[in-house]
Amino acid sequence: MSIVINSPLDMHLHLRDDDMLKVVAPLSATSFSGAIIMPNLIPPITTKNKLIAYRKRVIDASKDSSFNPYMTLFFKPTYSKEFLSKVKDEISAIKLYPAGITTNSEGGVSGFDIKELKNTLNAMSELNIPLAIHGETNGFVMDREAEFASIYEMLALNFPNLKIIMEHITTKESVALLDRFDNLYATITLHHLLITLDDVAGGMLQPHLFCKPIAKRPEDRASLREVAFKAHPKVMFGSDSAPHPQDKKEASFCSAGVFTAPITLQLLTELFLENSNLDNLQKFISTNAQNIYNIEVPKKEVILEERDFIVPTKYGDIVPLYAGEKIKYSIKEIIC
Amino acid sequence: MSIVINSPLDMHLHLRDDDMLKVVAPLSATSFSGAIIMPNLIPPITTKNKLIAYRKRVIDASKDSSFNPYMTLFFKPTYSKEFLSKVKDEISAIKLYPAGITTNSEGGVSGFDIKELKNTLNAMSELNIPLAIHGETNGFVMDREAEFASIYEMLALNFPNLKIIMEHITTKESVALLDRFDNLYATITLHHLLITLDDVAGGMLQPHLFCKPIAKRPEDRASLREVAFKAHPKVMFGSDSAPHPQDKKEASFCSAGVFTAPITLQLLTELFLENSNLDNLQKFISTNAQNIYNIEVPKKEVILEERDFIVPTKYGDIVPLYAGEKIKYSIKEIIC
Repeated sequence: MSIVINSPLDMHLHLRDDDMLKVVAPLSATSFSGAIIMPNLIPPITTKNKLIAYRKRVIDASKDSSFNPYMTLFFKPTYSKEFLSKVKDEISAIKLYPAGITTNSEGGVSGFDIKELKNTLNAMSELNIPLAIHGETNGFVMDREAEFASIYEMLALNFPNLKIIMEHITTKESVALLDRFDNLYATITLHHLLITLDDVAGGMLQPHLFCKPIAKRPEDRASLREVAFKAHPKVMFGSDSAPHPQDKKEASFCSAGVFTAPITLQLLTELFLENSNLDNLQKFISTNAQNIYNIEVPKKEVILEERDFIVPTKYGDIVPLYAGEKIKYSIKEIIC
Repeated sequence: MSIVINSPLDMHLHLRDDDMLKVVAPLSATSFSGAIIMPNLIPPITTKNKLIAYRKRVIDASKDSSFNPYMTLFFKPTYSKEFLSKVKDEISAIKLYPAGITTNSEGGVSGFDIKELKNTLNAMSELNIPLAIHGETNGFVMDREAEFASIYEMLALNFPNLKIIMEHITTKESVALLDRFDNLYATITLHHLLITLDDVAGGMLQPHLFCKPIAKRPEDRASLREVAFKAHPKVMFGSDSAPHPQDKKEASFCSAGVFTAPITLQLLTELFLENSNLDNLQKFISTNAQNIYNIEVPKKEVILEERDFIVPTKYGDIVPLYAGEKIKYSIKEIIC
C-alpha cells in the first residue's frame, strides 16, 4: 500500500521568531503545504507592518517555496473596519487570546463584553475574516475549556456570519458545540489525540507533554478521536506545535507547549491507519481546512512508509514529543 | 502573643537512606518530637533486621536525641501472625502501597483480594498494629483516590478492629469516610492544604509541587481545610515530605514528591493563625496523633514568631516548597 498525503496543512502553528524560527520553520515547511502562523510574539503582531515583516522572516526561514504561511493578527477589540479592510488580504484569520491564558498572551482580551467586541467582530464578519480563539477561562485548569463553552455560544449566536474557529479543542463539551452552531469550527492537535492528563501527570510528571489547554480526561480524548477519525467536516488538524528551549521545559517553572511539528505526519498516519483510514486523514489534514478557510494550497505530495523512525532527542535545543523513542512510520519522499 | 507548639509530630515522613537521609533527617529531627518513617526504600523494609538497621541509621542521621522515629514495615500479604508478634514492638504501623502507585512501590499489593489479605490483617487487628494506606487505584489520575473509597470501605467493614490510616488524603470523598467508619483515620499534608492542581499545572508547570496523590480541585482542598482547621479528632498532620534531588525533579521525567519538612511548622502556623487557632494546630500536629496511635512522645517546645523567613533555594541538592520565597513566620527557639 502506498501512503500518500496531499498538501498537508497545519492550521495552528507557532514558529516564534529569531533563532527559534530558523530552527523550527524548515521542519514544518519541508512537509506541509501551509500553516496558520500564530501571532503571539513579543510584542504580538498587531499592525500591518509587523505582519508583513514577520511573514517575510517566516518565508526566509522556511527555505521551501512550496510552503505557504497563512498569517494571523493578534486580536484587539480596537481594530476598526478601516484597519481590517487594509490588512484583510494579508491575513487568513485573527487570533483571540483571553488575557494571560498562555504563552505571550498578556495583551489579550479581559472579559468578553459584547459591547466592547462588537465593532471589530461585525467588521470581521463583513470582511469574512475568521476569528480563531484560544477558548479557556481563568477557572480551574480542568474546567477552563468547558467553562468557555458559554462564551463560544454567545459569540456564535451574536455574530452568526462570523466564522469562529475553536482552537486546539480538548473536551467533549467543545466537540458538542460543533453540531449546535453552524459557524463554529475547530482545530485538533496531534498530542490531544494521543495523550490525557494521565500521560502528563499520572506516572512521572512529563514537562514535554505539558501544554495549554492541558490534556484532559480519557472520555474527552475519545470524543476528539471520534470527530477526527471520521473527519468531521468542521474539524481541521492544527498541531499547536509550540517550541520552547529545553531549559525552559525541564525547569522549576516549565513553559506550556508540546513540540510535534517534525513527527506529526508520521504519527497521524499511524493513528489513522489503526483507527480510521487514509481518506479521512486527507480530509482532516487538508481538505476540510481548504473548505473552511476557502484557500488554495501549494501542491505537495508526502509519501510515507511503514519503517521505524527514531525521533531525535532534540531539534536545536528543543525536545520533541517522543524524543528518542521509536515510531512506526517514516517519510519516504516529498514531491513538490 | 507567644506561639508555642508542643511536641510536634509528623505522622507521614520519607527520610530515604544514605546521603539523602543525612541531609533530611536532621531537618525534621530538630523541630519535631517524632515522625512515622515510611518504609519504601530500595529494597523496602520487610524484615525485622532491615527495620532495626534502618532505625539505627535514622537515629544516627537525626543528630537529635529528642526525636523519635516511629518505624513502619512495608506491607506484604504474606506476613504471618508469628512474624508480626516478633516485630510488633519495633513498629508503629504497617504501610500498604498498591503496586506501582508511587515512588518505590513496585512490590506493593496488586488487587485487593480479601482472601489474600485477611490473615495478615486479622493478625494486625489482634496485635493492634495500625494499617497505613496509600489509597489510590490505577485509574485516571484525578479519580484514583475517590475510586479507592470503596476499598477503604471494604477494609473498614471487614476488619472493624483494625485501625486504618488513610494517608495523605486529598479529596472530599476521603474526608467523608472519616465520619462513616469508626476505624478510619487520616493524615493530611501541608501542601494539600495549600495547593490545588491549578498550582501544579494551571500556570506554568511546577515540578516541585508534583506529588502523589496529585493535588486536586478547590472543593477538595476546602474539604481538607475544614477538617484540619477544626482539628477533627481522627485527622493528623503527616507531611509526606518526600525529597528528590533537583535533577530528578527538573527533568523530562519528574519524580513525585514535595519537600516541605524544614518549613512545615512555619507555614502551618501561618495557615492556622489565619484560618483557625493555635489550640487546633496543637491537636492537628500532635495531640490527635498521640491519641490515635496511643503513643507517648518526647517533650519538645517549638517557639515561633512573626518574622519573615526566606526559604533556602536548596537543602543539599533538594529544592523545597516555596524555594527562595518569603514566608511570614520563623522558628525562634526550640526547647527540648
